[in-house]
Amino acid sequence: MERPRHQGMAKNTYMRWRLPLVCLLWEVAMIVLFGVFVRFGAEADAHWEEEKREMNLTSDIENDFYFRYPSFQDVHVMIFVGFGFLMTFLKRYGFGAVGFNFLLAAFGIQWALLMQGWFHSFKNGKILIGVENLINADFCVGSVCIAFGAILGKTSPIQLLVMTLFQVTLFSVNEYILLNLLHVKDAGGSMTIHTFGAYFGLTVTRILYRPNLEQSKDKQGSVYHSDLFAMIGTLYLWMYWPSFNSAISDHGDAQHRSAINTYCSLAACVLTTMAFSSMLQKKGKLDMVHIQNATLAGGVAVGTSAEMMLTPYGSLIVGSISGIVSTVGYVYFTPFLESRLHIQDTCGIHNLHAMPGLIGGIVGAITAAAATEDVYGKEGFIKAFDFTGVYQTRTPSIQGGFQAAGIVVSLLMAFAGGAIVGGILKLPIWGDAAAENCFEDDVYWEVPEDEESDVYHMHNPDKPASP
Amino acid sequence: MERPRHQGMAKNTYMRWRLPLVCLLWEVAMIVLFGVFVRFGAEADAHWEEEKREMNLTSDIENDFYFRYPSFQDVHVMIFVGFGFLMTFLKRYGFGAVGFNFLLAAFGIQWALLMQGWFHSFKNGKILIGVENLINADFCVGSVCIAFGAILGKTSPIQLLVMTLFQVTLFSVNEYILLNLLHVKDAGGSMTIHTFGAYFGLTVTRILYRPNLEQSKDKQGSVYHSDLFAMIGTLYLWMYWPSFNSAISDHGDAQHRSAINTYCSLAACVLTTMAFSSMLQKKGKLDMVHIQNATLAGGVAVGTSAEMMLTPYGSLIVGSISGIVSTVGYVYFTPFLESRLHIQDTCGIHNLHAMPGLIGGIVGAITAAAATEDVYGKEGFIKAFDFTGVYQTRTPSIQGGFQAAGIVVSLLMAFAGGAIVGGILKLPIWGDAAAENCFEDDVYWEVPEDEESDVYHMHNPDKPASP
Amino acid sequence: MERPRHQGMAKNTYMRWRLPLVCLLWEVAMIVLFGVFVRFGAEADAHWEEEKREMNLTSDIENDFYFRYPSFQDVHVMIFVGFGFLMTFLKRYGFGAVGFNFLLAAFGIQWALLMQGWFHSFKNGKILIGVENLINADFCVGSVCIAFGAILGKTSPIQLLVMTLFQVTLFSVNEYILLNLLHVKDAGGSMTIHTFGAYFGLTVTRILYRPNLEQSKDKQGSVYHSDLFAMIGTLYLWMYWPSFNSAISDHGDAQHRSAINTYCSLAACVLTTMAFSSMLQKKGKLDMVHIQNATLAGGVAVGTSAEMMLTPYGSLIVGSISGIVSTVGYVYFTPFLESRLHIQDTCGIHNLHAMPGLIGGIVGAITAAAATEDVYGKEGFIKAFDFTGVYQTRTPSIQGGFQAAGIVVSLLMAFAGGAIVGGILKLPIWGDAAAENCFEDDVYWEVPEDEESDVYHMHNPDKPASP
Repeated sequence: MERPRHQGMAKNTYMRWRLPLVCLLWEVAMIVLFGVFVRFGAEADAHWEEEKREMNLTSDIENDFYFRYPSFQDVHVMIFVGFGFLMTFLKRYGFGAVGFNFLLAAFGIQWALLMQGWFHSFKNGKILIGVENLINADFCVGSVCIAFGAILGKTSPIQLLVMTLFQVTLFSVNEYILLNLLHVKDAGGSMTIHTFGAYFGLTVTRILYRPNLEQSKDKQGSVYHSDLFAMIGTLYLWMYWPSFNSAISDHGDAQHRSAINTYCSLAACVLTTMAFSSMLQKKGKLDMVHIQNATLAGGVAVGTSAEMMLTPYGSLIVGSISGIVSTVGYVYFTPFLESRLHIQDTCGIHNLHAMPGLIGGIVGAITAAAATEDVYGKEGFIKAFDFTGVYQTRTPSIQGGFQAAGIVVSLLMAFAGGAIVGGILKLPIWGDAAAENCFEDDVYWEVPEDEESDVYHMHNPDKPASP
Repeated sequence: MERPRHQGMAKNTYMRWRLPLVCLLWEVAMIVLFGVFVRFGAEADAHWEEEKREMNLTSDIENDFYFRYPSFQDVHVMIFVGFGFLMTFLKRYGFGAVGFNFLLAAFGIQWALLMQGWFHSFKNGKILIGVENLINADFCVGSVCIAFGAILGKTSPIQLLVMTLFQVTLFSVNEYILLNLLHVKDAGGSMTIHTFGAYFGLTVTRILYRPNLEQSKDKQGSVYHSDLFAMIGTLYLWMYWPSFNSAISDHGDAQHRSAINTYCSLAACVLTTMAFSSMLQKKGKLDMVHIQNATLAGGVAVGTSAEMMLTPYGSLIVGSISGIVSTVGYVYFTPFLESRLHIQDTCGIHNLHAMPGLIGGIVGAITAAAATEDVYGKEGFIKAFDFTGVYQTRTPSIQGGFQAAGIVVSLLMAFAGGAIVGGILKLPIWGDAAAENCFEDDVYWEVPEDEESDVYHMHNPDKPASP
Repeated sequence: MERPRHQGMAKNTYMRWRLPLVCLLWEVAMIVLFGVFVRFGAEADAHWEEEKREMNLTSDIENDFYFRYPSFQDVHVMIFVGFGFLMTFLKRYGFGAVGFNFLLAAFGIQWALLMQGWFHSFKNGKILIGVENLINADFCVGSVCIAFGAILGKTSPIQLLVMTLFQVTLFSVNEYILLNLLHVKDAGGSMTIHTFGAYFGLTVTRILYRPNLEQSKDKQGSVYHSDLFAMIGTLYLWMYWPSFNSAISDHGDAQHRSAINTYCSLAACVLTTMAFSSMLQKKGKLDMVHIQNATLAGGVAVGTSAEMMLTPYGSLIVGSISGIVSTVGYVYFTPFLESRLHIQDTCGIHNLHAMPGLIGGIVGAITAAAATEDVYGKEGFIKAFDFTGVYQTRTPSIQGGFQAAGIVVSLLMAFAGGAIVGGILKLPIWGDAAAENCFEDDVYWEVPEDEESDVYHMHNPDKPASP
């Protein structure tokens, strides 16, 4: 059945040779680089029996696998189902949301294993990986999924792969500066993942500004069932966020504490989101956009401080505030950003990740600056902030200052990186769709004829069968 | 686009000030109470290093976090995705099902941390929380989700929050009576969660009886895809139920045994449900309502006994029976309850939670009464029933008697509590919808225009665009 | 509302007495056999306290439950949500996909606990079960879910139960031959689960060949939202596959390594699948069938070798190749198999399980043959391949030979078993639907009237209301 193709006329979105070429070349590069550099870490290597003896471990349960694997799987679900389905809210972009997220994340984790490996797990010329590397690779890709939210529906899969390549690289550099040079704590990634990822994505979408985007306005909304699909993403992000924030914390109390703080923050966030969603709408009705997104701000906003002694009530306060800020953002800031600053933010990542990420960085700095040996215990204090070696003399207030510096560095990296990458993505060679074909799966996907469409078709013989 | 609003005329469902007020006031109250009372338990506190030394623990893996966190996350999924999506089967109440469940559970877990904390984790003026408290809070909220099933589609979000406040309180009192005063075992909550939650909800819905509910009969059914959304809820409840029943059992064999018994019971339950679903329908076809619900009865019915030496074949028997009882309930009891007793039970919680909960309590009492030192071993016997301290002399048959008393207490608390709370919810100030607007998201939610609706609208110009 | 029933005229699909009879009789048989044979293993038995002392274990965390339970739950999700939802892609067979998968798996795990128990956990006349048995039962049922994929939409629930009974039996025999007689390693089941399951299913569907199946061609496609439901299945299989391949590996490094290898293989597989999906389609568009299925081939193809020292780059290579083979299979082999060999493979299991399963077996044989003490360490080498007792003198190259023999045995068992079982299922007593009613839930399920259908109905008064 032949149908007229608007996009075919306006822009060349033909992917047949470009997309396979990029995918295959990059996968070959991954294989070569993995072949040269990546090996199993001691706890995943068959020599582990000897290692165990050397480290005086009496049981296999001491393998880091058992400390972190359940959290890893939860994080994995957040990246692929959480982000993927969260973005299926658009009525005709579900395939792109979940499918392109799948593609970029699958590529991104391979590249992240290398980039982060060179910075953090490089020994004698080899990158030695274990479950913690898998988690960190997922984290790194999380920042790309966030940026994807800003440009959702407006880019080709090749653009997404190019963005992933550069963003993972910049993420790893930024992470190295923060964690190693500034000696900053950021286990849940308020700064490294959310602040960086969101402002990076917002800068990219600003540069890719499409003045005629209202031509696809009819496709920018949801339908009833697409909103339910999106809620699957929301809930998995919400439920597993305690695992996200605790996944790479120190063994023992730190992991335990991170999970509790995040649980509390997220619970509070739901209530303030619901309150403001109803309050800011004339008819007092709840808006699914807020429920799908702003309820998660509480997880972002304790990303840095969750493993610290934030306390459960501190978490409730942070969660409450971030829910309010995020909901207000959806109602007032997003339209403002689009009309005045020409930032077209499809999923509202400014409200879900950027602002809560900044809150998270600031709360982390304050919590660190307020730390005392009394609250943490002598040993706990040193362990919580790694005040050992050259950092032995660092005081909480200095640590707070460095934490704040980490926010600034992340912002600068995001703006500068986003500007460069946005410029690259603006080149007319990547096959993105024309404005009137944005938010439409039909451009890059084989889309089945729907029953509804059949009905539609039946009664409108001169209209195309598929929207 | 202006559309006539039936509910606006009939009843005031305007939420703009009431819902935000309730949410915000309660969240502030939570923050204050958490500030005064809630602190980290020893295993989540930064002083853990010292604690570890005192307790002679050699490894961080001994932290309770590693014994229970994977189960906690499974339980968390059951509460938010399991219950939330199970109730999306209605054709136009998916937002309310998953969204209100989200709201009440997020509030409920905070209040439950306090209520259960005062009863069980109170030391020197502080509630000390850890992962087990998070699980118990989720459990407590589970009983509210169950009650929500009875009144699904007929109440305002404020009513749900009010009900949650009271039900969590009563749940905690009942739980205290059972676990502490009667020294009853109920790790999977057949009595405390299911029997109490279900009869509480049934009493509430009885009091909120709506004589004209047939006015919204057309919306009480499902559509094809809403039934598939509901199956997501069903399967997550079914798959993770072994975690539910084992989450707070003693470390070691008890957790292991609970998971196995629950796995067996649920497997058997699926077969008898399918058998009776087909048998009780004239055309011999399977009914999705049964598959979505009765298949879960096997998890409810071993809630008390799963951690005991029920044995795998005992589990199969219990699961088989509960599947039959539950399916028969959907076919015969639910219509009877509605027409004769005026109990309008939207999700059929009488079949999924009430009757199987009673079975679970009884099976628990029998299994406890039948316990012998031979079957459990001398130490295992004492450990399984905590026959220590003042309970040192309790015999299995006495324990069985107390278990039975636990059922009765749970029932009485449910009826009395449900009657009082139902009376409160009947006050005409909570903004519930008129009978003809029940089971309709449009009352409390911004609902997108659907493609189907567009079609609908197109051919029915004098009808409202959205159903 | 009376509607004409095509299937009623053509074939007797009435299930009312047959299906309940089979379900109930078999469940009674399970109860009896469990009663005679199945008991708790030492780690789930209340005597565990004594056992612990005997085994010199100092902590409950040494219970196998804590090593394997998180992986078990992931595998459980793969079987019920993963396989169940993966098959919901058909526009009108979602209930059958997820519901019949639920039924056959719930029965299958009971029968598998017995069959595998007799072969592997039989002591003093009793089958002693623990969490590893639950995982193995799920694995065994996985092979039935795979075979179900080939005959999806064309069989009655009774046929599926009959097939499950026989296939679980044959699976256990084949598994016993491979693991115990040939002493082959196959932790992720490339041979025992995928190769066996897929060729078994393909043989069955060949024998059940329906020459007139094009009569239901209109129902063999997807609709927009059914493709999204299927992606839920895909992603859960993809995300949890590292747990699948590592679930029953040795404690410690082997589990850790399996997870890493599988993670890498699957990531690579996504890129090559996307590349070939676009490349093999004239318009260069991506095909959801490939994304839903071929992206998983990487998990299948490292099933045998994941726990070996395959290395991360080895995994990338295997994953890349299997993604290509699988996608090419969907485009070229599936039509060929149907038109020339009369193998009607609804889900394309030949591409997702059969070919990648063979690759997995071969890669396993090569990896085993290439093993050296240098790579594994002296102890690690012996542990990895269990070269103890009578196998003390086995060399890697001999092991590789036995691994290869395992592939051949699995294939022979699949062809022979599939032929016999296919013959049994061809008997005209099982109530399967006529060709024109295949892929249609209405035959065995109460299907709700859809809104779309209402619209449809409204404008087509002389057509049946439900498609």
